[in-house]
Parts: sequence; C-alpha cells; structure tokens
Amino acid sequence: MADDNVVFVGKKGTMAYVLAVVTQMNQGAKEVIVKARGKAISRAVDVAEIVRNKFITDAKISDITTSTEEISSEEGKPLKVSAIEIKITK
Amino acid sequence: MADDNVVFVGKKGTMAYVLAVVTQMNQGAKEVIVKARGKAISRAVDVAEIVRNKFITDAKISDITTSTEEISSEEGKPLKVSAIEIKITK
Repeated sequence: MADDNVVFVGKKGTMAYVLAVVTQMNQGAKEVIVKARGKAISRAVDVAEIVRNKFITDAKISDITTSTEEISSEEGKPLKVSAIEIKITK
Repeated sequence: MADDNVVFVGKKGTMAYVLAVVTQMNQGAKEVIVKARGKAISRAVDVAEIVRNKFITDAKISDITTSTEEISSEEGKPLKVSAIEIKITK
C-alpha cells in the first residue's frame, strides 16, 4: 500500500485527522489506515468513529490491530509504547 | 458471558488493570474483555499489550471493536465518546 493511504494521528486536533481521512477517501482511496502510538491511540479511535458515523457512512472499520513498539526517549533510553492500526474500508 | 470476565479500564494505574486480567485468567477464564471509553482507551491498549507480552504469553488479542456511546456530561448534556472492547483469549 502506498504511504498516502496512511494517516498518522498525533497531537493536532481530532478534526484535522478526520479531514485527512475523508479527503483521501473522497479522492478514491478504498482503504485508509489510521495509526497512532501512546496517548494518541484514543484520538485515533475518535477519528475512525467520527469518519464512519458522520462523514462516510458507507465506510467500515474492517480491522484493528495493536502492537508494542520500542522507541528512544529523549534521554536515549529505550521505551515501549503501545500502537494501534485501524483499517477503514469502503 | 458473566460480568466477571470484563475489566473496565478507568483512571487507575495501568498495572491495576493488568493484574485484574491476569488474575481472572489464572483463575480459569479463557476469555477476558477489556473495555474503556474516551482517554482511557490508550490505557486499555497498554493493558492488553502488557498482558500478552509480559504475563500470559499464550494469550492472544482475538478481537477489537470500537463504538460510539452517548453519555451525559456533568451539566446533563448528551456527550458522545468513543469506546473500545479488546477481547483477550487463551
């Protein structure tokens, strides 16, 4: 899958990511993957729920997977964070 | 399913919920459902990841679903929040 079918949810407002997903789907993407790590996971779920309930009502959440990723903290120590991938399909 | 196979993740520390899941599985539960709403969703994913990676390595996350629930805010207004259910099976 091309990278432009992935929306990585971070610290912006929820609607910025909703708009990104909706834009990709309106441009013809049949599938968009919403990814997030750590505290942004809650926002990623909000994004997926808002997309399918308010904007693209024929879209479905077809798969959700979680994983644990190791990142480097600011002090260079390894740090484990949870990650989520939510696949939205229409 | 009996209610005692559900762990509802809230504002306590992550390990309190990990312990609740591990205890239920060690007492014979083949399946535990971890539920959370709103900002606690990130913590619920942490709980599931820690259970399967550190404590019960033969456990799997067999299903994850999300939904939107309507709750009443403190002022009595309806408020929509995202919710997650993570099914852990061994």
